[in-house]
Amino acid sequence: MKRVWKGVFLPSGKSNPPLRNSQYRLFDMSKSEIITQRVEHLRRWMREAGLSAFVFPSTDPHASEYVPDHWKTREWISGFTGSAGTAVVTLTSAALWTDSRYWLAAEEQTAGTPFEVVRCGRNVATAEEMTAWLQAKMTAGTGQVDLSPVTLGIDGWCAAQSYVASLHAAVNKAGMVLRTDLDPAADLWEERPAVPEAPIELQPLEFAGEAAGEKLRRILASVESEGANAIIITQLDDIAWTLNLRGRDVHCTPVFVAYLMLTPDGTTLYTDPVKLTPEVQTYLRDLKVRTAPYDAITDELSQSRDLRGLRFLVDPDTTNSAIYDLLTMIETPEMRPTFPDDFLANAMHFTLASAEAVSPAVVEGESPVAQMKTLKNAAEVAGLRRAMLRDGVAMVKFLRRLDDLTKNESTGNGLTTSGLTEMGVDRMLTGLRAEQDGFRDISFDTIAGYGSHAAIVHYEATPETDIPLEAHGLLLLDSGAQYQDGTTDITRTIALGPLTDDERRDYTLVLKGHIRLATAVFPAGSSGTQLDVLARYAMWQDHKNYGHGTGHGVGSYLSVHEGPHQFRMNWMPAPLRAGMTITIEPGIYIAGSHGCRTENTMLIVEDGDEGWLRLDALTLCPIDTRPIVWEMMARDEIEYLNKYHARVREALLPLLGDEADREWLIAATQSI
Amino acid sequence: MKRVWKGVFLPSGKSNPPLRNSQYRLFDMSKSEIITQRVEHLRRWMREAGLSAFVFPSTDPHASEYVPDHWKTREWISGFTGSAGTAVVTLTSAALWTDSRYWLAAEEQTAGTPFEVVRCGRNVATAEEMTAWLQAKMTAGTGQVDLSPVTLGIDGWCAAQSYVASLHAAVNKAGMVLRTDLDPAADLWEERPAVPEAPIELQPLEFAGEAAGEKLRRILASVESEGANAIIITQLDDIAWTLNLRGRDVHCTPVFVAYLMLTPDGTTLYTDPVKLTPEVQTYLRDLKVRTAPYDAITDELSQSRDLRGLRFLVDPDTTNSAIYDLLTMIETPEMRPTFPDDFLANAMHFTLASAEAVSPAVVEGESPVAQMKTLKNAAEVAGLRRAMLRDGVAMVKFLRRLDDLTKNESTGNGLTTSGLTEMGVDRMLTGLRAEQDGFRDISFDTIAGYGSHAAIVHYEATPETDIPLEAHGLLLLDSGAQYQDGTTDITRTIALGPLTDDERRDYTLVLKGHIRLATAVFPAGSSGTQLDVLARYAMWQDHKNYGHGTGHGVGSYLSVHEGPHQFRMNWMPAPLRAGMTITIEPGIYIAGSHGCRTENTMLIVEDGDEGWLRLDALTLCPIDTRPIVWEMMARDEIEYLNKYHARVREALLPLLGDEADREWLIAATQSI
Repeated sequence: MKRVWKGVFLPSGKSNPPLRNSQYRLFDMSKSEIITQRVEHLRRWMREAGLSAFVFPSTDPHASEYVPDHWKTREWISGFTGSAGTAVVTLTSAALWTDSRYWLAAEEQTAGTPFEVVRCGRNVATAEEMTAWLQAKMTAGTGQVDLSPVTLGIDGWCAAQSYVASLHAAVNKAGMVLRTDLDPAADLWEERPAVPEAPIELQPLEFAGEAAGEKLRRILASVESEGANAIIITQLDDIAWTLNLRGRDVHCTPVFVAYLMLTPDGTTLYTDPVKLTPEVQTYLRDLKVRTAPYDAITDELSQSRDLRGLRFLVDPDTTNSAIYDLLTMIETPEMRPTFPDDFLANAMHFTLASAEAVSPAVVEGESPVAQMKTLKNAAEVAGLRRAMLRDGVAMVKFLRRLDDLTKNESTGNGLTTSGLTEMGVDRMLTGLRAEQDGFRDISFDTIAGYGSHAAIVHYEATPETDIPLEAHGLLLLDSGAQYQDGTTDITRTIALGPLTDDERRDYTLVLKGHIRLATAVFPAGSSGTQLDVLARYAMWQDHKNYGHGTGHGVGSYLSVHEGPHQFRMNWMPAPLRAGMTITIEPGIYIAGSHGCRTENTMLIVEDGDEGWLRLDALTLCPIDTRPIVWEMMARDEIEYLNKYHARVREALLPLLGDEADREWLIAATQSI
Repeated sequence: MKRVWKGVFLPSGKSNPPLRNSQYRLFDMSKSEIITQRVEHLRRWMREAGLSAFVFPSTDPHASEYVPDHWKTREWISGFTGSAGTAVVTLTSAALWTDSRYWLAAEEQTAGTPFEVVRCGRNVATAEEMTAWLQAKMTAGTGQVDLSPVTLGIDGWCAAQSYVASLHAAVNKAGMVLRTDLDPAADLWEERPAVPEAPIELQPLEFAGEAAGEKLRRILASVESEGANAIIITQLDDIAWTLNLRGRDVHCTPVFVAYLMLTPDGTTLYTDPVKLTPEVQTYLRDLKVRTAPYDAITDELSQSRDLRGLRFLVDPDTTNSAIYDLLTMIETPEMRPTFPDDFLANAMHFTLASAEAVSPAVVEGESPVAQMKTLKNAAEVAGLRRAMLRDGVAMVKFLRRLDDLTKNESTGNGLTTSGLTEMGVDRMLTGLRAEQDGFRDISFDTIAGYGSHAAIVHYEATPETDIPLEAHGLLLLDSGAQYQDGTTDITRTIALGPLTDDERRDYTLVLKGHIRLATAVFPAGSSGTQLDVLARYAMWQDHKNYGHGTGHGVGSYLSVHEGPHQFRMNWMPAPLRAGMTITIEPGIYIAGSHGCRTENTMLIVEDGDEGWLRLDALTLCPIDTRPIVWEMMARDEIEYLNKYHARVREALLPLLGDEADREWLIAATQSI
């Protein structure tokens, strides 16, 4: 049956749909026709607006990782559903930039449309790349007239200030002009999904560990230490953390769409009033937080006299360009320093400092909220540890059942494990998690990849790709849950039966890397980039590597990806500090063959002496020892594994009622 | 005897004298009086010039590591002799910024002078730090009048453009003005040492491996790929490498003071004509390199019509601000892009790109020469390997003699090794090196630190600090030589007799770090920051660390420190590539007790598959196995040590004629 293709592919409410190529083939014609028509409508609109090109990035006003459907304008105009990419439409051409994960999918999804796919290395087209492309297109003698100077458009609400600034610089250097005040989707997107409006919930103090009033006070104090006295918090997890509130507006992430403004005179939460239950209204009133509709922030920033003279701390990497521009328009009583009359005349000796076109109302700097949020307080750590116990119980129950299924089969190749498929794994595991206290949701779409599917780093099983497990080879299972007291993220790679030597070797190299990093002791202030190689050293000896980062922070019933600290090769200066969570998840992926990854979520803790830190595993779940090539393991690596397994057994055994689960755990955590 | 204190402490021609504290005490009064008088003269000069403050950095016009005496203005005005620091003199105050290595020495050396020592973390005062200090001084009600706006001076010839630009920005932000066209030392420094004028020598093609004409062609091609067509090479080792010439102007480094300009019309070497021997004149004539006096570059840049329309590639981190300014004055036929009339009026939507005040004659970017120079060609690698053989022979002869001396002693504490002192070690080792073919000089001042002296990272024995070795404890010996076919850099820590458990443990931790990094395999394009932790992992487990980098490039009969690639914790993005040299030199320093460091110079080589690199030891000299705690060593670490020692024995044994030396080498390289 040919389905009608609308602005969003999936009616399920999933906001980050997987790339289901076969599904697209069903309606390729109607899809490419619709996209072509949309591009035509856009070009008519661009001509009326005097624009020569329009840029559609993949972001929303809140620099979200998971973008609500309302802001998926890049997908709307191009039909490309990947999580990262940049679409550009000129009057005569159109292009889509995306990174290697999506090259093939993007070409398939844009076939028959005006879009050409530009393969780029990063997940965003740089301003320089895009400008060079535009220049080539503009100067290619396309018969345009009356377009001097060439004007490029981008919706300033849906692009970070730093990106828009770099685009401004590149575009202006090329003699073109950038406008940021237009949103074609507002005029042209029929049946555009609304901004989500799920109700907001309180996050009790027993889980949050610090009253919102105290957080607001700390944030303002930190803002003042940066030479500012006000801030607009735009990232949704920062807002949820600050106010001890949670929402349901975003896929797998308990946040709600809003802005939060802190000034010395008070705090304002800009959000859709329909989200505010009576309980939340009372809570906010007690907290002396004023509420205003989400859209009111535009008028309040551009008209309010109350803001005069304020100095806003703004992070240009996370604040959208429209908010940034509104802030720079705030009147200020301060004056810029003056220079002597002969200043410019003496250019040789008096070089002008690079003129930063920043208003005195804006102080650029990192938002203190992201940093504060990453440092878990005692209640958050206790909650995370409780959540990990329950998550470990669910994992053990799942792994025991999986083992039973594979054991009941003959172990010959080709025989299936009672028909269990990758999607079945997801359903079974999610079901076991959902039985646990405080379960709210999964924390990201489960990655259950069997055999060669495990080699696809961003694999998510779909009805078209789903395959039954067989009683041999490796299952890679990366999953996590949102419990009200903590967010979990764990990867295990499980032997379903006999393995090849390569599978065993790669599994062991990954485990060696995991343990080497897990055992690191390091000085406070080290960055994740400085430690990352410890997870790669062993596999590099074998000329194997992985293209993703080695680890990321994990929220407390918040985003499963929490920054800015990370373990990764690219330079990430954010220092590691005691109280932060961070995952360790090295992997090896052999295309067409197998993949393995072993991930624990860790807590950074003090290591005795002041100034020295180490990692403590929060995740509690056995690591499969069956694939390990023991001769490759160093003495201290085996010791670490034994200690970890003793801890897992001690923690989880009392929580397991079923004798079969208990026996499985005892066997799985046997000391070597 | 009270010595008269002149502009430079040491008449020996050493341009980077050690901090001889006791020596200063001899003439403290006359020194502080002279400094005070100089500051007074400077202030009189500043008033006449309309300046409120003057900044003296520690650099020369060529961003040299070892600064010729002529440019040691910071030392002249402040009396502080350390290698890094920034002096600032205002009309009423004076300050000296320096890093932790020099805090105590700086305070001692500036006692009784107008200078206060400002303890800073880096080895240069940042523009922001200095400006904040100046603002505090200027607004402290010091009774100044007619100084609006406040004007700060710095000699643009002796400061990198990037530093001056940051100073400009900070100073202007604070409402002050910066002048870069004045050099008070030119007017005030009596008996200022001349710019050195040692003769230039040819570096034969058999050692250089690539003709200078070919290098000039490659450099211009690389400059063109950056969108420029001309370059002024300012760093002295870059000039020497490019022209296959060497000099004797700088301490331990075979370079000569010059600038080198490459344009499509030809090449000009700006250097003192007295340096040009007839042989070199002929060589340069054949190479079609025009010569001009060193100072002629000012006039030629500011007046020559030939340069009109050229675009110079300029590295603002290594090009001095005066050269940079001269280049920006070159006329150009190009125009800047124009903007529409309503551009600025629509500030909200048309944000002005941050105006870079750069002339079209300047293209900012990294100089290609530094990169090219780091990639050793086959002749350079062969030369380095030959030099390492001869250096290894000298080291073995020294180590055997040292062992004989300690063995001949009773091993009880307090007995000396036949009176050999730290300076004696330097003399003995340098003498053995000087016997080797092609020896020209040492490559840096030998660090021979015995016992607690080894814990002082920048220790250099002086007559006042020199102590005799005793038949116990550790001697740290960091040394190297300039041979015509290669530069060496090696550190060995040697057990002179019984050791404490701490000495043995720390020695072993350092060795484990050295080996872990030495055995690394890594993808091409990795940076040294990404690998650095491998040298620290073992000692971090013990809460020990070192404050210096882990490794640096080494030149081919050029600078012993060659960049930009390095192993270090701070972010150094320069990628590691096959053909580069790099040292591995972790250390542990326990103040008041002991220090150890083990350093080899390595060559980065391909590891079979394309895209994978490993490190191959160039240095050939036994590593002392006597202090090793074998239980702490992993299997693969012991294997590495055995293989390295087998290689050292095989390489050096045929070169040793003396039976005692041969026996010593065989014993020292025994497999474990």
